[in-house]
Amino acid sequence: MKLQFKAVPGSINAPAGFLASGVFCDIKKLGTGRGSDKGQKRDLALIVSEVPATVAGMFTTNQVCAAPVKLCVERVKKGAAQAIVVNSGNANACTGLQGRKDAQEMTALLAKHLHLPAEHVLVGSTGRIGVPLPMANVRAGITEAVTLLDNLPASADQAEEAIMTSDTRPKQIAVEFKLGGKTVRIGGICKGAGMIQPGMSGTGARPAAQPRVLHATMLCFITTDAAVDAKTLQAALREAVAQSFNRITVDGDMSTNDTVLVLANGLAGNRKFGVRSSEFAIFQAALNHVCLELAKMIVRDGEGVHRVVTVRVQGAKTVQDADAAARAVANSPLVKTSWHGGDPNWGRIMDALGYSSARITEGKVDVGYSAPDRRKILWSVRRGQPTKATFRQLCAAVAPKEFDLHLNLNLGPAGAVIYAADLTEEYVDFNKGDTGDPNSLGG
Amino acid sequence: MKLQFKAVPGSINAPAGFLASGVFCDIKKLGTGRGSDKGQKRDLALIVSEVPATVAGMFTTNQVCAAPVKLCVERVKKGAAQAIVVNSGNANACTGLQGRKDAQEMTALLAKHLHLPAEHVLVGSTGRIGVPLPMANVRAGITEAVTLLDNLPASADQAEEAIMTSDTRPKQIAVEFKLGGKTVRIGGICKGAGMIQPGMSGTGARPAAQPRVLHATMLCFITTDAAVDAKTLQAALREAVAQSFNRITVDGDMSTNDTVLVLANGLAGNRKFGVRSSEFAIFQAALNHVCLELAKMIVRDGEGVHRVVTVRVQGAKTVQDADAAARAVANSPLVKTSWHGGDPNWGRIMDALGYSSARITEGKVDVGYSAPDRRKILWSVRRGQPTKATFRQLCAAVAPKEFDLHLNLNLGPAGAVIYAADLTEEYVDFNKGDTGDPNSLGG
Repeated sequence: MKLQFKAVPGSINAPAGFLASGVFCDIKKLGTGRGSDKGQKRDLALIVSEVPATVAGMFTTNQVCAAPVKLCVERVKKGAAQAIVVNSGNANACTGLQGRKDAQEMTALLAKHLHLPAEHVLVGSTGRIGVPLPMANVRAGITEAVTLLDNLPASADQAEEAIMTSDTRPKQIAVEFKLGGKTVRIGGICKGAGMIQPGMSGTGARPAAQPRVLHATMLCFITTDAAVDAKTLQAALREAVAQSFNRITVDGDMSTNDTVLVLANGLAGNRKFGVRSSEFAIFQAALNHVCLELAKMIVRDGEGVHRVVTVRVQGAKTVQDADAAARAVANSPLVKTSWHGGDPNWGRIMDALGYSSARITEGKVDVGYSAPDRRKILWSVRRGQPTKATFRQLCAAVAPKEFDLHLNLNLGPAGAVIYAADLTEEYVDFNKGDTGDPNSLGG
Repeated sequence: MKLQFKAVPGSINAPAGFLASGVFCDIKKLGTGRGSDKGQKRDLALIVSEVPATVAGMFTTNQVCAAPVKLCVERVKKGAAQAIVVNSGNANACTGLQGRKDAQEMTALLAKHLHLPAEHVLVGSTGRIGVPLPMANVRAGITEAVTLLDNLPASADQAEEAIMTSDTRPKQIAVEFKLGGKTVRIGGICKGAGMIQPGMSGTGARPAAQPRVLHATMLCFITTDAAVDAKTLQAALREAVAQSFNRITVDGDMSTNDTVLVLANGLAGNRKFGVRSSEFAIFQAALNHVCLELAKMIVRDGEGVHRVVTVRVQGAKTVQDADAAARAVANSPLVKTSWHGGDPNWGRIMDALGYSSARITEGKVDVGYSAPDRRKILWSVRRGQPTKATFRQLCAAVAPKEFDLHLNLNLGPAGAVIYAADLTEEYVDFNKGDTGDPNSLGG
């Protein structure tokens, strides 16, 4: 399908009628005083639609899930929302009843400032697990952030900075397309660098048939001025997340806080559309693009990541097998360290396929490499046996910062793609913890 | 139960009637010439009983399994064996039909030298995956090793050296006990340092009901002079492996070559016994001890391992849940890096429990620490909430080189233990590969 959308500058501020802001309110209790002008990263963000919006959400399926996730799951079900408050530095996870009260208070306070019903305000948190939120700081931050709400690019950038934790760079995108003759935009920001292998569903519950998925805190906030009812929006988001955020892994750890929220405020004035319309296909393609690009930014900025590898499995008996095969390879410490070393170690790949829950036959497996999204594949293994590709050729194939790994099981029709990363000394060094800090970054 | 066995010096040579040897035959084709006196580690070992023996074996359940494993699975079924040839430096895995022929030839050559039927000779390999064995070197090594067969401690030590790959130290044990008035001994050697999370069965096939297990090449060879029929021996080994090697993980990668073999030559002269006899209980306890001690040596000598953590789950609804919970925590990169850092990061533990396939309820989980095998537990989390234990106290609890992590799910009667290790920069550095080497160590 020809792309029916184009990139535009900005992010959550690109669609009409969205305001954002980001402030520093010292949620980590660094005690360095207020204001990011003192050199501190912002840690509280607001995203607000000027008019009521429909909403859709996808949430971690971790059985230990944070208070803000539980609150959002309930509120998103109703389909309407107008504002989101997000903090970094504290995940508000494993915080019991107090955590629940704090999440509710954050939304109530913002609702009061904006003259909205509290149930139309959503909340996201990321950072330390098991530490109560410093609510005095959070309250002051919300109050200050309300005064700074704006639709300028700078405001969106400040919101983006405020949701980052171990991210080394902001992640944003915006696209524009036509929907029934009207110009529509979708914009988004996200964060995530470690504890990354999201497995999100619309209710936070695990679909029984879903392959087990494991990932780390990622938050993503998407805005659109499209007019789209909540049910249709949820269907589009579910599909977009299935093909993007739920297909990435940095370290195989699924967070307690993974959240994707979309607000659609209808200001583009397009006619509403259902899931069987041609408008839906266009909207879906654009939303898929936004989610996939943001998801790839997360992998590229993963903690300590040097190389990004797209694992493409085909020829599996079932989609579940394809997914299991791709994840086994993508999460194998031995495969990941070999990627780091630029070592085309197909033995480790065969080994990981062999212990995955996917059905494989050693004598049928093909292993190959290509440049990202390219069709020309250099095969290192065909039907379980090494090809004549030289070691030098294979090293060259795995030397680039990004490459595709092709695995054909030659057993059936099913395929799966996982966007993965290498495992480096920096990842270990970063995560071995700061023993001066009672709870390092978590959810 | 009071321990009914005592430690004795030596290893596979400790039981009566076993000979061993180890030589250097340059299986990695380093080209440095013959003889470990040239500073090269030995790479080919023989273990021989002077009289016919019964045999039992447990093998990797990896779907990609090495030629020697396939051969052993067939031969062990028959229940009789008298000699084992083992090489390091080359796993003879993913080597197709040639690999099968090479494994057969290794046993046939040794059989010819020893005047045994080839089907009474077993074979093990560990090292590079996907490279054909240098059979000229292997043949010369077997011929030389036959001339050196002896029951001296030095011979067993040389065999032990010859099976090592990335191991930094040899792993051996021997015990002695009484069986129906006769003195019986069990001795063993093993190797394994990376690609370690064995999931072995007696046939190499996955029991349908068995929880999915993932691990790396470990080889273990056990000798005993007990008289025990093959079926009883297999039952005892299955149980011993289930409680030891199948409960360890270094990196969560299951190898293509994991093998445990036991030869029982009957020279102790005890009356044969069945699985319901009191002798069986004593034999089982001794074999359990041998396997568990060897298994723990593997974890302690794991690639780059600084800390060894015994993860003890109790209160799970089912044994499968307990196993899944323990493995999720034991294999989480974020938990493992926090162990490395001496960081009592219970948030990451809760997170890993939450994404495991085990059923858990956040508000019921207890997390605590003790010294190895001690009952006095310092709880960091009770019923999902942090206790009053200070950060300083928790840091002290996770500071030792070995400690126990206690996880009570408080949902049911089932428990599981996993012997695990931290994840360090050294592990990454060691495994990122040698790009001058077409196939780094694998199975």
